[in-house]
Amino acid sequence: MLEEKNQEKTSLESLGEFGLIDHLTKDFPINHESTIKGIGDDAAVLDFKDKKTIVSTDLLVEGVHFDLSYMPLKHLGYKAVMVNLSDIYAMNAKATQITVSIAVSNRFPLEALEELYEGIALAAKAHKVDLVGGDTTSSRTGMLISITAIGEAKSEEIVYRSGAKPNDLLVVSGDLGGAYMGFQVLEREKEVFKVNPNSQPDLEPYSYIVERQLKPEARQDIVALLKSLDVHPTSMIDISDGLSSEILHLCKNSNVGCNLYEDKIPLDPTVISSCEEFKLDSTLVALSGGEDYELLFTIDQKEFPKIKGNPNLTVVGHTTDMNEGAFLISRNNSKIPLTAQGWNSFAKA
Amino acid sequence: MLEEKNQEKTSLESLGEFGLIDHLTKDFPINHESTIKGIGDDAAVLDFKDKKTIVSTDLLVEGVHFDLSYMPLKHLGYKAVMVNLSDIYAMNAKATQITVSIAVSNRFPLEALEELYEGIALAAKAHKVDLVGGDTTSSRTGMLISITAIGEAKSEEIVYRSGAKPNDLLVVSGDLGGAYMGFQVLEREKEVFKVNPNSQPDLEPYSYIVERQLKPEARQDIVALLKSLDVHPTSMIDISDGLSSEILHLCKNSNVGCNLYEDKIPLDPTVISSCEEFKLDSTLVALSGGEDYELLFTIDQKEFPKIKGNPNLTVVGHTTDMNEGAFLISRNNSKIPLTAQGWNSFAKA
Repeated sequence: MLEEKNQEKTSLESLGEFGLIDHLTKDFPINHESTIKGIGDDAAVLDFKDKKTIVSTDLLVEGVHFDLSYMPLKHLGYKAVMVNLSDIYAMNAKATQITVSIAVSNRFPLEALEELYEGIALAAKAHKVDLVGGDTTSSRTGMLISITAIGEAKSEEIVYRSGAKPNDLLVVSGDLGGAYMGFQVLEREKEVFKVNPNSQPDLEPYSYIVERQLKPEARQDIVALLKSLDVHPTSMIDISDGLSSEILHLCKNSNVGCNLYEDKIPLDPTVISSCEEFKLDSTLVALSGGEDYELLFTIDQKEFPKIKGNPNLTVVGHTTDMNEGAFLISRNNSKIPLTAQGWNSFAKA
Repeated sequence: MLEEKNQEKTSLESLGEFGLIDHLTKDFPINHESTIKGIGDDAAVLDFKDKKTIVSTDLLVEGVHFDLSYMPLKHLGYKAVMVNLSDIYAMNAKATQITVSIAVSNRFPLEALEELYEGIALAAKAHKVDLVGGDTTSSRTGMLISITAIGEAKSEEIVYRSGAKPNDLLVVSGDLGGAYMGFQVLEREKEVFKVNPNSQPDLEPYSYIVERQLKPEARQDIVALLKSLDVHPTSMIDISDGLSSEILHLCKNSNVGCNLYEDKIPLDPTVISSCEEFKLDSTLVALSGGEDYELLFTIDQKEFPKIKGNPNLTVVGHTTDMNEGAFLISRNNSKIPLTAQGWNSFAKA
């Protein structure tokens, strides 16, 4: 759990609640003019002037969303922030502040929380967000992280899930399925470790997909790229639960149908090779795997020349009239209805 | 746990995550012009125009902050919202939106969550706040509720913990110690119930303090009252951890000392009688009990005539120079240093 196994351990009881918050948050700088007052009062005070405030919140639960047997705490802190920022970017907004609340059992020493907050600090620094509040308490078992991310955007910049029109292009950033295949590799190594605790896993061939699982990066850069390309998405969503489920969200909210082309879905070579190794269908992994935190958006066809050939963006299909339905057009040209097989945290538990 | 014990139970798995959120939040109205987009996209969009945004967040954990053996779920939902709104009011701000995230184990059926959300809806309605987001997931054990409250205030209206000057008056709203004594009564009844499950507790004589514990009311009315009286607190905080701990926060943040007069601390007769019954010192209960969610604030002495005789407000002492320290002046006129013996969730766990 801790990076350095033999370091001294400080019990949380010895600090108390206020000591703990002060200790964990003392080195977080304030970057934004909009942060009038951060941690240290009953509430934070923010000033967005004439801009809109964007708010999103996510809960990560040990044993449901993460497994500390292979998830280093620093990575967990980083990922927990990314999951939230991804939602802000999916509104085409700028992330500005976060609040971080954690519940931990007494099995965690202070040093564990320091590592978690190191990851949170790294993420906050990389994405220039201010930590402005939070709560720290005990839980009876395990760890739980609740983050609220706050952002800003001009009214005319905000992109909802509901703006797609028939015959728009469906575009995704990056590539898909990596986080899920990284999860498969890590789960396999965990089983090997259970049988032989002295085994040394060679994760080198899987480094890309393992990083996609352990240290995902919310696509702030895509929001900036779209701005620099003068591209105006008609609708947008982040891909947290798998492409299939997210496309269906966009279609439902925008009252459109869609055709998604199997042969267009962007896959990294490591995803393809690991799918072969694990005897999994790479299309299914991309459609239902989840946790990639890429962006899915629609653009008017007229904007296609602006994104054509960009290595960060792939056109994977187009929207249709609502009554045409939502389909995957397979490599052999058959039309398969899209179903939401995104990751369901209740079914999994 | 459920109000109606024999009603049908629906498993959470049968709904799935999105179905559950939709189901639980479908009847929440939008009250505020500042709520541009609530639930249903990657993030909420709020518009505070030229006002400041106020943000606060709290985490409530089963077995640490609440005990479902005597806390009805509807009350829990109500209280969870109040705990957060109290922080917004302590900034002298208006509460406008909340996000609610919950993690629950499979032992909770849908009907349990419906009751929880009934309480949340009641609180949202009573305090006119819009539910604009949240997350619903499973936990391995128990229930956890994370709420973020958002509010608005004009810059000049906001009251921080840091504005008290020496010789300001220390004022509290309502009365103190009730929530803690309600907790004592409920814990005693729980023990009786364990021995004899057929016993019928008579809580009638304790109804005031039991309600203070189970259904606290964040003091929105005090913020309005101060405005109507044209009173401008120099500092303010909400009393969640006991008067002693909160006074020390104010003193530390404002760089002042204080004298708190034991005989001025407002106590309800039920608190006094139950303290006698439980052989507890009522002053200690008020100082360290916590969960009263009253407001503690300081005002310039010139403003005293405006609050004099108001039944909702009690002057309990005054601030001093920082180097004079923070003291309780006891009934027999001895000076006792104030110590923070507020409720510590880590020590308790």
